[in-house]
Amino acid sequence: MASRYELFYWPGIPGRGEFVRLAFEEAAVAYRDVAREPGGVDEMIALQESGKGRPASFAPPFLRHGRIVVGQTSNILLYLGDRLRLAPATEAGRSWTHQIQLTIADAVVEAHDTHHPLGGDFYYEDQKPEAARRAALFRKSRIPLFLDWFERILASNAKGGRYLVGARLTYADLSLFQLVEGLRYAFPKAMRRAEKNCPLIVAHQGRVAERPRLAAYLASPRRIPFNEHGIFRHYPELDS
Amino acid sequence: MASRYELFYWPGIPGRGEFVRLAFEEAAVAYRDVAREPGGVDEMIALQESGKGRPASFAPPFLRHGRIVVGQTSNILLYLGDRLRLAPATEAGRSWTHQIQLTIADAVVEAHDTHHPLGGDFYYEDQKPEAARRAALFRKSRIPLFLDWFERILASNAKGGRYLVGARLTYADLSLFQLVEGLRYAFPKAMRRAEKNCPLIVAHQGRVAERPRLAAYLASPRRIPFNEHGIFRHYPELDS
Repeated sequence: MASRYELFYWPGIPGRGEFVRLAFEEAAVAYRDVAREPGGVDEMIALQESGKGRPASFAPPFLRHGRIVVGQTSNILLYLGDRLRLAPATEAGRSWTHQIQLTIADAVVEAHDTHHPLGGDFYYEDQKPEAARRAALFRKSRIPLFLDWFERILASNAKGGRYLVGARLTYADLSLFQLVEGLRYAFPKAMRRAEKNCPLIVAHQGRVAERPRLAAYLASPRRIPFNEHGIFRHYPELDS
Repeated sequence: MASRYELFYWPGIPGRGEFVRLAFEEAAVAYRDVAREPGGVDEMIALQESGKGRPASFAPPFLRHGRIVVGQTSNILLYLGDRLRLAPATEAGRSWTHQIQLTIADAVVEAHDTHHPLGGDFYYEDQKPEAARRAALFRKSRIPLFLDWFERILASNAKGGRYLVGARLTYADLSLFQLVEGLRYAFPKAMRRAEKNCPLIVAHQGRVAERPRLAAYLASPRRIPFNEHGIFRHYPELDS
């Protein structure tokens, strides 16, 4: 019998766990979302600490699949890519997909740091002026730079540019979808401007959202709404 | 004839390129360090921009190896791991090595953000009070947390804990070495305190530095010293 997939991530926020959930949902593969079950957070923390054994992961999310435990969002997706048929078959294609994923992960860190520029140990309320300065630069310079890079990838894809890599959907497409959804939630005004220069990303966004399994998932209670405890937070004072 | 390896990274700073250089140097594999040659920066920028073609990478470093171009430091090391015999043979071992590498990369971002908490578009001089607040938390809470995690990995390694993964050196060992060197350069006072709780990391640091090829490299002009233009900067006001 094949091992089941068990995802460990904080309940209540989409956060980095959502990038993994999207892969499972698109692949229609059953998975345990452990920390959303009763007692699951304790199980997650116990596994992360691991006593004197090998630590599972520096932080959630991590994945358990039989005897293997995989941490770091992008590394989890690398592991799942082949298994869920969400990665190209060639090494060059897999490497390019992973490179795009890691760049999306960089953008996610920067999006988080707009509301926590001094680090996660201070509350947002204790770093509001700093957040305002960092968010202004993020809106003005970083969002356009990141989006332009993804737009160029779609534009230069010799297989038609429906997806980022080759002719088929990969986990990088799901992650770009989640990044853009998060940016739209957090920075609706800035994104309305920025998206005028990214028609291919806008079309890509709709294409992913309309995939039947994704659409069903997004409409289900399994999909956790963005909120002000996660990575992408809508603080109106940080958008303009 | 085998393709040669060509590294593209900003000259003048060790930065993220150094993690790739250490792998080549330890493996005693010849590589072109393109941007350190005359005209090399122009060659790097042209390749990164790529006109209407596929962009090489969102940012340096990236690697060209024959027809393949690989970007993102951790992804470059994933690509090189097998080829330079700096990664385990099993999938589980390779995944764990990559997970550790990605966590080192997270620590590198946080080390950088101590002097640039508001982002790279402001000079350090324009964010000194913010840097002081972020650096204080980094010294007090983040350095110990990251080091403790690596210490636990060494302590729980069933193969003796000379290296992070199994019984042989991997690229993650080289990267941990570079991270600790950088932290020692940037935060000498904080690191003297923190290292008291990390005897295995201290021993590991010496073990890596004493490997003959590494020792020869570190003493050579190819090794770029840490300086105040890179990721790890020694600003005395940020250490205590």
